[in-house]
Amino acid sequence: MTNLQNYTIGLVFYPGMTSLDILGPQQVFSGLPGVKIHRIWKTLDPVKTDDGMMVLPDTTFENCPRLDVICVGGGLEMLAIEDDPEILAFLREQGSTAKFITSVCGGSILLAKAGLLEGYRAATHWAAREQLAALGVEVGTERVVVDRNRITGGGVTAGIDFGLTIASILYGEETAKIVQLLLEYNPAPPFDTGSPEKAGPKLVNKAMLFMQQMPSLELAK
Amino acid sequence: MTNLQNYTIGLVFYPGMTSLDILGPQQVFSGLPGVKIHRIWKTLDPVKTDDGMMVLPDTTFENCPRLDVICVGGGLEMLAIEDDPEILAFLREQGSTAKFITSVCGGSILLAKAGLLEGYRAATHWAAREQLAALGVEVGTERVVVDRNRITGGGVTAGIDFGLTIASILYGEETAKIVQLLLEYNPAPPFDTGSPEKAGPKLVNKAMLFMQQMPSLELAK
Repeated sequence: MTNLQNYTIGLVFYPGMTSLDILGPQQVFSGLPGVKIHRIWKTLDPVKTDDGMMVLPDTTFENCPRLDVICVGGGLEMLAIEDDPEILAFLREQGSTAKFITSVCGGSILLAKAGLLEGYRAATHWAAREQLAALGVEVGTERVVVDRNRITGGGVTAGIDFGLTIASILYGEETAKIVQLLLEYNPAPPFDTGSPEKAGPKLVNKAMLFMQQMPSLELAK
Repeated sequence: MTNLQNYTIGLVFYPGMTSLDILGPQQVFSGLPGVKIHRIWKTLDPVKTDDGMMVLPDTTFENCPRLDVICVGGGLEMLAIEDDPEILAFLREQGSTAKFITSVCGGSILLAKAGLLEGYRAATHWAAREQLAALGVEVGTERVVVDRNRITGGGVTAGIDFGLTIASILYGEETAKIVQLLLEYNPAPPFDTGSPEKAGPKLVNKAMLFMQQMPSLELAK
């Protein structure tokens, strides 16, 4: 019999991924009792994240066991990988048996391209909402969207809210509340510009220009 | 003449560090124009974070250039390193010339042990407040404490608020607001238990027990 307290969680690590998308949830998950985390890529070679850090995958697509939770994030360089047949095949295959199919930020674009969001509502980074809608997905603008076993977070930092939501689903509210306390997740953002609705169109336009010039676009190469 | 828009930021990567402490700020800093980030440790060998991930430093203590901003985080295994003379000497040496001496979470314990917080107020993880006070530091319970050129954040996730505060100091409010928008930092914590004051003594006690059994304590070894 499966011990329902033991979960195998797979995080897809790809070159150019936005590290916080995935490493926020990783920090939450790693605190949960009985969780085994796999950091998965095609090879075990170091992967450069979009903030220029080198991280080491520990599991290949080929060697990856069946996952209870599959999770993929976004990245500024997503165009380079969002049609990668190996990634999409891996997501599709694991998605066929995973208990929860999940993403943070632009990761929902990958889930959609793998055919895993047909008929589902999902969240994504605000700058990717149109692209996700164009893929036939009903876009939710909430921070975390739970639609049956699809759990998707908004942009980057939403991964923390997302991770705690999953912690609560897997281990119950009290455990999630404890992890939130241990991570001292009592946010006090210095500004009130965390969503396009709050930031307003002028700042959104500036942010789009800023994004195109971000040093991380170079660093990830 | 120094171009004030170019900053060299050093993040200390040590075995057992809490990854989100440092990787939250890293994500913020990497979006800033003209920032050069160094990930610093004794050697270039992979370092295992307390959530079990292997990351690669890219700069050694020995080869590290003068830093404008030095930043160190905490970790569940801090006891193992908080009296490490090499780390403390490195912090002290860089701290003698850095424009900003900073920490997230239990990193302020390291700054204090290096003698860099004498006469300063500083933040730390809630579970480390007593230890920091015992080191003679005036403990602030705010999310981010700015005292002249010492900038310190509270526990783990406070690193995002901390990073945006530093972004604002280095590059001005508008740039920090744009980065906050790009990281979609519009938090919606699923529970209201992110500080000991909010969580209450019963949950705090449970969290202390929970922490002692965290799988990450094993993973980091």
